[in-house]
Amino acid sequence: MVKKRISILGSTGSIGVNTLKVVNHLKNEIKVISLSCNKNVDLLLKQVKTFNPKTISIVDEQSYYEAEKKLKPHNVEILKGRKGLLELSSRNNIDLLMNGLVGASGMEPTLCAINNGIDVALSNKESLVMAGSLIKKAMEKSGAKLLPVDSEHSAIWQCLVGEKIEDVKRLILTGSGGPFIDRTIDTFKNVTVEEALNHPNWDMGKKITIDSATMMNKGFELIEAFWLFDLDYNMLDIVIHPQSIIHSMVEFKDSSIKAQLGVPDMKVPIQYALTYPRHFKAPWETLDFFKCRELSFTKPDYNRFPCLLLAIEALKNLGTSPTALNLANDYSVQRFLNREIKFTQIAEINDMAMQNHKWIEKPSLDDISKLDTWIKNFVYSI
Amino acid sequence: MVKKRISILGSTGSIGVNTLKVVNHLKNEIKVISLSCNKNVDLLLKQVKTFNPKTISIVDEQSYYEAEKKLKPHNVEILKGRKGLLELSSRNNIDLLMNGLVGASGMEPTLCAINNGIDVALSNKESLVMAGSLIKKAMEKSGAKLLPVDSEHSAIWQCLVGEKIEDVKRLILTGSGGPFIDRTIDTFKNVTVEEALNHPNWDMGKKITIDSATMMNKGFELIEAFWLFDLDYNMLDIVIHPQSIIHSMVEFKDSSIKAQLGVPDMKVPIQYALTYPRHFKAPWETLDFFKCRELSFTKPDYNRFPCLLLAIEALKNLGTSPTALNLANDYSVQRFLNREIKFTQIAEINDMAMQNHKWIEKPSLDDISKLDTWIKNFVYSI
Repeated sequence: MVKKRISILGSTGSIGVNTLKVVNHLKNEIKVISLSCNKNVDLLLKQVKTFNPKTISIVDEQSYYEAEKKLKPHNVEILKGRKGLLELSSRNNIDLLMNGLVGASGMEPTLCAINNGIDVALSNKESLVMAGSLIKKAMEKSGAKLLPVDSEHSAIWQCLVGEKIEDVKRLILTGSGGPFIDRTIDTFKNVTVEEALNHPNWDMGKKITIDSATMMNKGFELIEAFWLFDLDYNMLDIVIHPQSIIHSMVEFKDSSIKAQLGVPDMKVPIQYALTYPRHFKAPWETLDFFKCRELSFTKPDYNRFPCLLLAIEALKNLGTSPTALNLANDYSVQRFLNREIKFTQIAEINDMAMQNHKWIEKPSLDDISKLDTWIKNFVYSI
Repeated sequence: MVKKRISILGSTGSIGVNTLKVVNHLKNEIKVISLSCNKNVDLLLKQVKTFNPKTISIVDEQSYYEAEKKLKPHNVEILKGRKGLLELSSRNNIDLLMNGLVGASGMEPTLCAINNGIDVALSNKESLVMAGSLIKKAMEKSGAKLLPVDSEHSAIWQCLVGEKIEDVKRLILTGSGGPFIDRTIDTFKNVTVEEALNHPNWDMGKKITIDSATMMNKGFELIEAFWLFDLDYNMLDIVIHPQSIIHSMVEFKDSSIKAQLGVPDMKVPIQYALTYPRHFKAPWETLDFFKCRELSFTKPDYNRFPCLLLAIEALKNLGTSPTALNLANDYSVQRFLNREIKFTQIAEINDMAMQNHKWIEKPSLDDISKLDTWIKNFVYSI
């Protein structure tokens, strides 16, 4: 059997580490060609010893030199800095690029890969939120595909296998509602970083955990679903499902609904992206229906989670609106994690940035880069 | 567009009536070629006027003559008796036969159709329970297919679209548990016909409603799933799900689970069988997640529902064991509906009949017919 050759961007992050766990039990099916990190050199070196990649890329310069010293005896090519990361993303000596990068910086690598005809397993939702139209255009040109890794989009993707998109009535994204689903609205301004980082169901990176608490994450998922599945925005619904057992659903025109469910474990959608369209045997826990809580469903509360409304507004406007929202959120969340702003200010700042930026209908990569500078200044000026 | 030509066996029964409701809004896609009933001539004549079939078949002789008189002015061929029903089932002037017959008498028509290369939309689960190996052999020979109509098997079928059967870990049939899910075991002997006919979720015919109350129906569905999906019997599980929202599920080897859900309405699986693999627009109610009860799951209780254990035993033994169980149940339920035996005696008599019949590994149609006579005598002798 010919092994599938993959590269992993962000291999020391949450998605990267879980991807390598999946590779570990699928050694006969998958070969790691490259790994990348920002500065967690210690973990990257361990991964190099276990998975023997040909190439690694390290964005942080000091970390690069540290790794270079330590890796002398190994026969590994090391790429440096942002430039190295983009070079790695462009190489077409692989079958699939796993983009597990966090935030806006993950967008350009996706575009590099797609431009070079490489399929991308996309965990970095910012890629599509920020540059959906650019990426779609590149996909049409190169023929490369996007494979969803987010549990919600993986669920929808699985429910659509063998189905016709014209038979779909709507996509139903489920969301746990995050840690503050039952918190009263007037205490939201006092939310601490520790409270926001304490997600009830999913074990994820810091940035995305905050985005779950504001539900900005669910809003971004709406935008991501819009680009992934080519459906009108009014065919995309959100249902709050606190148990995170049903990962999302598709309703068809005959009112038949398909859902994908299971234990909340990112390794399941990661493996599916790596082995699509197959479901290979896996060592992890199976859902025990006799132990799981009763499954419940409620409407999303737009008053407590205004970030959801911002996402819907961005979807209606398109152009640079989703880009601005995404960029603003990256910086506002960073400021919240640095304890510089209140929890409720994340949505407020995101809103202001989206309203006040100079809107462009069809932004180029350069437009997006300039917008980034403007938004960063804007968010940090508050 | 070329219309799909269908015939409906048992068009005045619950499945037949619902099938015609589906045809009614899919007039551009489907044409009714033949209808059949046992003796409900009044309803059949109404159906003839609405759907203009070329042929009808009436099993009951007196009803046949009644219909013949009333249909003089219409240009409709009328077939008579059991022989006429089998002739109708054998005609290959159609694309799909909907077998909505109830009980053991539905088996031979399925076999006639399959033998003549006609695909069968199968609501009559007794066909596969009684003659699974005969029907499978006939399918291999003629190339005809079975399309499930039971909501559970339709759910599994929908979840398997685009998937490989070797990736399946197990099928999970859900069952409401019937009207007696919370009834204490020592009051089961006092169950009245009226209580047993009062199903909480599904509106179905009498025979199958009693089978839901004893859970014999769920047991037969296990056997039906065994033949439909070609999986080991230990890959078939039952989960009690009282809300009847999730209609069944498939768990894959990577622990990903797909479920099909919706309002409990037989028209959904009926339409899917008629339009497979498409999901055409339908006028009925959509599931409202914000109004539906919390979804719960429990283990089946084999003490209160011994018919489930009988089905598992029949699956282990195969040969004539499922046939005997099915035949015995047809007669014992009839005797219960006639108020001749107690509710708990249904399982007891089924068990005795299955244990005491002369087991044959590979029964012919003739063997099954002889077994029928023996079982009938046996059940009515008690």
